[in-house]
Amino acid sequence: MPQIGRRQWVIADGWIPPRSTGSDPALISHEAACILNATEADANVTFTIFFTDAEPQGPVSITVPSRRAWHQNLGELPAPVKVPVATDYCVLIESDVPIVVQHTRLDSRQAENALMTTIAYPGE
Amino acid sequence: MPQIGRRQWVIADGWIPPRSTGSDPALISHEAACILNATEADANVTFTIFFTDAEPQGPVSITVPSRRAWHQNLGELPAPVKVPVATDYCVLIESDVPIVVQHTRLDSRQAENALMTTIAYPGE
Amino acid sequence: MPQIGRRQWVIADGWIPPRSTGSDPALISHEAACILNATEADANVTFTIFFTDAEPQGPVSITVPSRRAWHQNLGELPAPVKVPVATDYCVLIESDVPIVVQHTRLDSRQAENALMTTIAYPGE
Amino acid sequence: MPQIGRRQWVIADGWIPPRSTGSDPALISHEAACILNATEADANVTFTIFFTDAEPQGPVSITVPSRRAWHQNLGELPAPVKVPVATDYCVLIESDVPIVVQHTRLDSRQAENALMTTIAYPGE
Repeated sequence: MPQIGRRQWVIADGWIPPRSTGSDPALISHEAACILNATEADANVTFTIFFTDAEPQGPVSITVPSRRAWHQNLGELPAPVKVPVATDYCVLIESDVPIVVQHTRLDSRQAENALMTTIAYPGE
Repeated sequence: MPQIGRRQWVIADGWIPPRSTGSDPALISHEAACILNATEADANVTFTIFFTDAEPQGPVSITVPSRRAWHQNLGELPAPVKVPVATDYCVLIESDVPIVVQHTRLDSRQAENALMTTIAYPGE
Repeated sequence: MPQIGRRQWVIADGWIPPRSTGSDPALISHEAACILNATEADANVTFTIFFTDAEPQGPVSITVPSRRAWHQNLGELPAPVKVPVATDYCVLIESDVPIVVQHTRLDSRQAENALMTTIAYPGE
Repeated sequence: MPQIGRRQWVIADGWIPPRSTGSDPALISHEAACILNATEADANVTFTIFFTDAEPQGPVSITVPSRRAWHQNLGELPAPVKVPVATDYCVLIESDVPIVVQHTRLDSRQAENALMTTIAYPGE
């Protein structure tokens, strides 16, 4: 497998919609950092959350196993980080092996859902 | 024609919506890897699919002819790869000539459709 | 003004929705290549369109004046290029000065519109 | 904290929807430039707005404090810049320290909202 990716990533438009429409769990409003670790080593991936009017939260870390996909719900990061809904934030993601990160928001505040996605900004 | 593009690409937020609304084939929920081969040579393009809890599937390959567009439905990759719906996955795309890849999802689970797109992550 | 941008760009997921809902011109389904020329020189910008089953169309060219924005509707390129609706295509955009290109689709086939955007793929 | 980001960014598809549906302030149509300043220094961030048929507006500047997120509503930039609604524009963003910029549009002209996002184009 190739060593594809980078060790630093940024999501700049973080905002978790505060409401959802309907009860289907797959249609609950949320934001995700979708990660590929295509390397032969497990990745130790840390998340630091930045706010407009408060000190950063984190870093907290998760493990993404070798050759695995992991879609991290940004409202469900490990304690003690807790991203509030309806609040502007940014995310710095750091890994000890190369990974790729894509940012997606599903907004189902209204009856029909809205989607947005972008490859996150790759640093070093 | 210029040799524009890269030989490795990653889509990190793969998730095929499990349902659609209506019977218009152009409004069926799907994900696509949209590819341009602007070079003078045919491209041998391989897809490897990564999951959260299982070994990767693939690689499987397709040919994208010289100076042609090809929008690959990710739910219809060549056998034996079969990406299940409603399942988190990532995609590694490799080509023997430079190509460009853009990732798009059409989600028509609800009455009105939602769209998202991003240029995939370019590797080497 | 800075010389920001590149001289080659690719949009890989071209597909113009074949229908629209309502009569508001600003809600007609369309795709655009949105261009910034921040340089001190006018830009000669050419478009080449690639298809799945046919030879490329173009190049055709437009001028984007110095220090101006230009949002090019991809269904209204200069003759003889004519991109058909409901057809997969890709676009190669070339300029003699650095520009920046962003790709956006508005899909109003259903009563509520859907939007998607991405910075195009920058080449040389 | 890492010096992640760039000092120049471009948003090429600026267009602020002229109407909204409903009275919830969080569902008003708008465009934002979402910024992370992860550095140890405050960032002086300037915005220059480009139009199709008029001279650029700006630059005007804001401060994004060290280690803070700032989601700038592009319809509410400092005077004398005033971006009109329903008008094509592009944005050049310049900073004296590295930042990351993500562009997002919420369009609620119709009953259900539409969303689009992309990491902006990074220059030097």
